[in-house]
Amino acid sequence: MQVGFLLFDRVTQLDLTGPLQVFSQAPGYECHLIAPSADARMSDGPLALVPTKTFKTAPALDMICVPGGYGVAAAMGDEALTGWLKHQAPSCRWITSVCTGAFILGAAGLLDGRKATTHWAYHDLLAGLGATPVKQRVVFDDGVVTGGGVTAGIDFALEILARESGEAVAQSIQLALEYDPSPRFSGSPDSAAPQVLSKLQAVVYDARRQVMAEAVNRAAVSR
Amino acid sequence: MQVGFLLFDRVTQLDLTGPLQVFSQAPGYECHLIAPSADARMSDGPLALVPTKTFKTAPALDMICVPGGYGVAAAMGDEALTGWLKHQAPSCRWITSVCTGAFILGAAGLLDGRKATTHWAYHDLLAGLGATPVKQRVVFDDGVVTGGGVTAGIDFALEILARESGEAVAQSIQLALEYDPSPRFSGSPDSAAPQVLSKLQAVVYDARRQVMAEAVNRAAVSR
Repeated sequence: MQVGFLLFDRVTQLDLTGPLQVFSQAPGYECHLIAPSADARMSDGPLALVPTKTFKTAPALDMICVPGGYGVAAAMGDEALTGWLKHQAPSCRWITSVCTGAFILGAAGLLDGRKATTHWAYHDLLAGLGATPVKQRVVFDDGVVTGGGVTAGIDFALEILARESGEAVAQSIQLALEYDPSPRFSGSPDSAAPQVLSKLQAVVYDARRQVMAEAVNRAAVSR
Repeated sequence: MQVGFLLFDRVTQLDLTGPLQVFSQAPGYECHLIAPSADARMSDGPLALVPTKTFKTAPALDMICVPGGYGVAAAMGDEALTGWLKHQAPSCRWITSVCTGAFILGAAGLLDGRKATTHWAYHDLLAGLGATPVKQRVVFDDGVVTGGGVTAGIDFALEILARESGEAVAQSIQLALEYDPSPRFSGSPDSAAPQVLSKLQAVVYDARRQVMAEAVNRAAVSR
């Protein structure tokens, strides 16, 4: 299995590093970090992401995984990225995203008529790109697989691994990663403390949703 | 809060990238990736880890976080690393590790008489470095905080965040990261399928435990 993760500036690094840990540790999976050029991309934090392949040097892929992040709105309008995705997709067995990476798939026309999910704060906006938003941590629609926000990437990768390589392999990787989570608080808007949710929306997501809504409109027009 | 993550070759990248995502997104935290020199370190997969600071240029730290990985046995014997940790520790508020990073803390003498945890496969070996191994996902012993294997780094970071910055901040970051895990299988040796556990031990951990046991013996002698 040749797995390609798409890099762009301002990726949320855990969207990518979670599934990368799962797949890079699984037997028979070769993972590539792919960008238009060999220049490092900055994540949303101090971690630089260094491509291992460029669009020119990437091998034929069995799986594409598109992470999300604050750079998504710009990436949706980058025809080099969406063009590459459109070109690669027909020969891929799995076309996938984590978090707001779904919007890049959508901008490339790959979510048309598909059930899909994304980060809770932007979930309904997926409809603007032809998808049917489904509230689930991981959504399978044939070979199109989308994960929810950030940490959902771990569940997402283990689910794909179970389907592609069998449950014993997925169980083994989950155990090796000691993925026995014990979250202390809520990670869902449905069960979070209302004042925590409303403050987070006011401080972060009201403005971000506006940016993403505009990017969706632009992408919908140009599709 | 100045947070320094220690880089070395063959780090398990998710040990580091999980807590890095939590802290780098939290208000008032500045995160640094620190290595003896500016050269990139390779993780256990295709991800290169590029230092943002060296031992010379790193600021005074409030928190040190040491990730684990297959490179731990070599790092335990690297006096540049353990010397730096010994030198930094007295002025740090939090001295922490994820996964087998605990053994590097131990090799630096920082777990003497401390309750601590690590990846389940090596848990009992911590006693060889003066620690009292405790089976918990995150173990606090005053300012010394250790997390279990790999994915425990997310729980670990949210717990520290709650204590350091208050529960509202930790709740907000957990919600932003949509940390609402739904693991399909077991990530604990206590509940994993016995044949999955025994095969993983035979294929991976029997040999790795041997390597780590020898590194513990060497570190115990030189402490």
